[in-house]
Amino acid sequence: MAKAAVLGASGYLGGELIRLLSYHPDIDVTEAVSRSQAGKTVGEVSPSAEQYSDIVLRANSDGIDVDVAFLAQGAGEAMPVVPSLLERGIRVVDLGPDYRLPSAEEYARVYGRPHIDVEHLPEAVYGLPELFGDQVKGARLVANPGCYPTATLLAIAPLAAAGELHGPVVVDAKSGTSGTGALPSASAHHPEAALTVLPYGMPEHRHGPEMAAALGRLGAHHVPIVFVPHVVPLVRGILCSIYAAPGGGADAARWTALYQHRYEASPFVRVGGVPRLPWAQGTNRCYISVQPVGNVPVVFSALDNLGKGGAAQAIQNANLMLGLDETAGLSLPGFGV
Amino acid sequence: MAKAAVLGASGYLGGELIRLLSYHPDIDVTEAVSRSQAGKTVGEVSPSAEQYSDIVLRANSDGIDVDVAFLAQGAGEAMPVVPSLLERGIRVVDLGPDYRLPSAEEYARVYGRPHIDVEHLPEAVYGLPELFGDQVKGARLVANPGCYPTATLLAIAPLAAAGELHGPVVVDAKSGTSGTGALPSASAHHPEAALTVLPYGMPEHRHGPEMAAALGRLGAHHVPIVFVPHVVPLVRGILCSIYAAPGGGADAARWTALYQHRYEASPFVRVGGVPRLPWAQGTNRCYISVQPVGNVPVVFSALDNLGKGGAAQAIQNANLMLGLDETAGLSLPGFGV
Amino acid sequence: MAKAAVLGASGYLGGELIRLLSYHPDIDVTEAVSRSQAGKTVGEVSPSAEQYSDIVLRANSDGIDVDVAFLAQGAGEAMPVVPSLLERGIRVVDLGPDYRLPSAEEYARVYGRPHIDVEHLPEAVYGLPELFGDQVKGARLVANPGCYPTATLLAIAPLAAAGELHGPVVVDAKSGTSGTGALPSASAHHPEAALTVLPYGMPEHRHGPEMAAALGRLGAHHVPIVFVPHVVPLVRGILCSIYAAPGGGADAARWTALYQHRYEASPFVRVGGVPRLPWAQGTNRCYISVQPVGNVPVVFSALDNLGKGGAAQAIQNANLMLGLDETAGLSLPGFGV
Amino acid sequence: MAKAAVLGASGYLGGELIRLLSYHPDIDVTEAVSRSQAGKTVGEVSPSAEQYSDIVLRANSDGIDVDVAFLAQGAGEAMPVVPSLLERGIRVVDLGPDYRLPSAEEYARVYGRPHIDVEHLPEAVYGLPELFGDQVKGARLVANPGCYPTATLLAIAPLAAAGELHGPVVVDAKSGTSGTGALPSASAHHPEAALTVLPYGMPEHRHGPEMAAALGRLGAHHVPIVFVPHVVPLVRGILCSIYAAPGGGADAARWTALYQHRYEASPFVRVGGVPRLPWAQGTNRCYISVQPVGNVPVVFSALDNLGKGGAAQAIQNANLMLGLDETAGLSLPGFGV
Repeated sequence: MAKAAVLGASGYLGGELIRLLSYHPDIDVTEAVSRSQAGKTVGEVSPSAEQYSDIVLRANSDGIDVDVAFLAQGAGEAMPVVPSLLERGIRVVDLGPDYRLPSAEEYARVYGRPHIDVEHLPEAVYGLPELFGDQVKGARLVANPGCYPTATLLAIAPLAAAGELHGPVVVDAKSGTSGTGALPSASAHHPEAALTVLPYGMPEHRHGPEMAAALGRLGAHHVPIVFVPHVVPLVRGILCSIYAAPGGGADAARWTALYQHRYEASPFVRVGGVPRLPWAQGTNRCYISVQPVGNVPVVFSALDNLGKGGAAQAIQNANLMLGLDETAGLSLPGFGV
Repeated sequence: MAKAAVLGASGYLGGELIRLLSYHPDIDVTEAVSRSQAGKTVGEVSPSAEQYSDIVLRANSDGIDVDVAFLAQGAGEAMPVVPSLLERGIRVVDLGPDYRLPSAEEYARVYGRPHIDVEHLPEAVYGLPELFGDQVKGARLVANPGCYPTATLLAIAPLAAAGELHGPVVVDAKSGTSGTGALPSASAHHPEAALTVLPYGMPEHRHGPEMAAALGRLGAHHVPIVFVPHVVPLVRGILCSIYAAPGGGADAARWTALYQHRYEASPFVRVGGVPRLPWAQGTNRCYISVQPVGNVPVVFSALDNLGKGGAAQAIQNANLMLGLDETAGLSLPGFGV
Repeated sequence: MAKAAVLGASGYLGGELIRLLSYHPDIDVTEAVSRSQAGKTVGEVSPSAEQYSDIVLRANSDGIDVDVAFLAQGAGEAMPVVPSLLERGIRVVDLGPDYRLPSAEEYARVYGRPHIDVEHLPEAVYGLPELFGDQVKGARLVANPGCYPTATLLAIAPLAAAGELHGPVVVDAKSGTSGTGALPSASAHHPEAALTVLPYGMPEHRHGPEMAAALGRLGAHHVPIVFVPHVVPLVRGILCSIYAAPGGGADAARWTALYQHRYEASPFVRVGGVPRLPWAQGTNRCYISVQPVGNVPVVFSALDNLGKGGAAQAIQNANLMLGLDETAGLSLPGFGV
Repeated sequence: MAKAAVLGASGYLGGELIRLLSYHPDIDVTEAVSRSQAGKTVGEVSPSAEQYSDIVLRANSDGIDVDVAFLAQGAGEAMPVVPSLLERGIRVVDLGPDYRLPSAEEYARVYGRPHIDVEHLPEAVYGLPELFGDQVKGARLVANPGCYPTATLLAIAPLAAAGELHGPVVVDAKSGTSGTGALPSASAHHPEAALTVLPYGMPEHRHGPEMAAALGRLGAHHVPIVFVPHVVPLVRGILCSIYAAPGGGADAARWTALYQHRYEASPFVRVGGVPRLPWAQGTNRCYISVQPVGNVPVVFSALDNLGKGGAAQAIQNANLMLGLDETAGLSLPGFGV
């Protein structure tokens, strides 16, 4: 039984990690850290937590002795602690953005702060297992992808690999409000959020450069992505509608076959009809559908931003890093409604 | 054309006052005050405002010269300015709670702060025009009722007057999130509010003593009210479900007739079937329905917490105070959906 | 491994049964029946179903050979098939209302049709395991309670047992729309349901007599219940706010202790603070909180109408009937958000 | 005072017409027609209607004597009655699709039925007053545009006119559920609609050819539109996110100036920051914003599908046809929240 720590345990991603790990057969949460809620128990912060309710939240990760640490914190919070964790032999899955971009320069440009762990940045593996699973297996440090990049990259990677991605690609994303985090904010204030669709992130959402970097790793360096996220009045779930530039006529059947073939060995990607978000709720699944519109195939991808777009994918990465079955603890059912 | 000032113009009630007054034939907004947004224009704070977009928000009400001031602020914010406004001959409609309770002692007990304008507290009229309209007409200072008391009192006053109110009365209220105000808060954070029903205000919501005081004014001193508000995933609207203790057998027809008779001269109260909240949205209407359940008649009342439960009723009060038609500016249509 | 059939497999309760049973260690779904969707596969009807996707839906239950049948159908649909199922040695959990009421006369009055299986009606056990678990263990035929009665009875049984239930009891229930079933209807049409709170079921909802009958079994024959359900804009979940007549002064601590003691051995009932509905989603848990309001304790109970209020409780009953661990397959985690 | 008839008075568009016309100073509803609800009063069907509550719904339009008829019905329902209405000198605003497409052949292809009023089809004016207002003024028969085409065409017409529309244009639309109409349906069933975003209309939504035809009238014949509508969990409102192919570098300021200049004389189009849908609720306004994303300007347009996207625009057209002030009855305020 591997021992795990959850840092940022009082946030939504941290809560989801604790929730999912309570049913993991091979990983046990033994430490939980929350700067803002230190001293309380997990049960006080997350009353729905059951198995781990009595763990007392620590103020920091000093001296914890675990096999893997999940860092579910905001930008800039992983870099100060990752070196120490790695030095102590702890594998790290960072759910924040500190290790997702390929260079300290790009990180400084996008996040407006210098990168303070340039030593380990090069070894960080971008943890999208369906695309980079082989690298994840041997990694000490994994950068868990953002929710939007996960949905987008799974949806366009097969086209990129087939040489059918001719730019630019329009990615119109619709996300629930849990993506804004547990801290109340104007854009997620219910009276403001419940009755509208809010496009945001112009002129450049931080997940845009992350997508571009990942596309570069896939060899599609020169495909521009026009990415606009929208907050819709949902709590969980992301649907990306992706408009790839047409490349030689609509052939939905051929495209669907391309996707099915690409993902036939992937236990968490489902290719089929137009998806519903509840199917993905609480799971590590991403549902993909290719639909012709005029002579343009449009790709839809759906996932739970806290599941495959966050905590569940982090567990998938940890499974690979620890040599466990990739699907361990991740076969919980989704919902019909 | 009467001149009006709106204090608290950047809040939801303030915004609704400006919205409604933009269509008022006899009252013109000439001043708007917002401590937090002073210096901006109304249009910058409320992009949907049209007519009054160019008014620059003032930091306070010093020196304003108007006929009526609407105070749309929180507890404790009216008392410091009301004496000066009255002294300058300005009529005041206070949408906050400072002048709703009958004594400084009760105010101090309920709101946890001393009342600092005991001089004017006795002359304040409780501005529920359907019940106390005659007093409103001559008033300089009107305490606009809370949203829950408005819905509750309109629904039980006919029973109280008929001597059919045998205690205790259970008031189970369901409110949209706009009642929490424009400031982001944990209870109105979309991910927390959108998927649940949240009872709150135990053991005593502040609107309970307000209801009790108003019942006292109606001569029903000894009817205890068990009041529990719930936040439901709506933005606007309150539905109160009111369970009056049975007093001699169910007779829905007789009760409905009692209500219809009581409100036949009231332009803003509608007695009929089970109401839908959109009917009341943006209006000064309260919809009331009496339905038998077993041998107990249950009363439902529905209104817009920012309309009849707030800004629209404040305008109704101002109309009466200024000698205008009670319905002036208040005939905007509700919605089917 | 016990073999199970799900009748009504294309409805919401049927879909939830299949979802939950896909993770049950000791029960395997081998047959699924849907009159309206016969010939399709489970996967075509419920794309999120995984393990059982390839089962072909049968038009009826003729000739099925299973250990237990879950009947997830509407009123009147169980009675015609239960005799045959029992005769073939199949245990039956009926999620519909046909066997919930204590007499054929009461059934005919409430459901407006004669009961056609008076032979087996007397042996049906009312399957609320926390109250009647001993009877469930030996039963061939269990009537799974309605969603509202489950939430209400768990919340008031401790008071009834303690002799502290003095009538009448007001039950104001708030339910999500999935309770209306999978068939589109006016009251669950999104434009009608999303922006209001709809009280319904006046003058007598069918679950009222069911509650009264169960109270009778508990010895509280003469406690009248004033029950009004409301549809709120949620999909899953019920919150009941229960106002028990005051019986000698508010003592929240004593009441909470009473509840905690009553349910300390119940794995699925949690007594504590004010609950949130996501905690219960997809689970067999019921969360109960006692809160003082004035001198009246108010009881809140929260559950998932398709979980503890439906499919999950049906599995709990089947576990007991089959001699399995009561919690088998029912330890899936709820949600924080 | 012009006399008006509303056909389809029991639907959502019909209800909105009656609602809005109750505040129109120069048009009076004197007749209302509803095949399905004939014999009932308007008030029975639309309890929030006030002024027109007592009008008895007629089964058809035979013999009505009005100045203008609003046809708020589905595809195929206008063609049979328009000839008779025109013959009797009644002006017609058709809110359905029967007269929107430029030829009977195109109509037959898109709607799957032959056009049966080819005589009047050529004279029908496409009633988007901001683009074709001069033609509307003299028209007897106006085809009121669809909700999506209204939002899309207002957003791209300035680019088309400036020769800056280089194809293809991606239109990703998000609509509330009221667009599906008053009849309950699977896609608007609350449990299905409330927790997801549903793309639909593939491979070709009927509003696509309508947009193409209108673009043709604007001289932009060869700009392909890739249009995908999505149902989001809102009741009212449409947000279109429009991705125009880049044409020479991002210059948000220049584009905004282009739009502001184009619509400076249009009382119902507002060009500015990112809009919120409540601003448009119940109004005839369309809010447009141009935002740079990378080097691509993205255009957002927001309106109420029952307002500017339906009933309010129909009234705007009728105002022009009857020689009234274009804004008569259409200055109701939108909402902040």
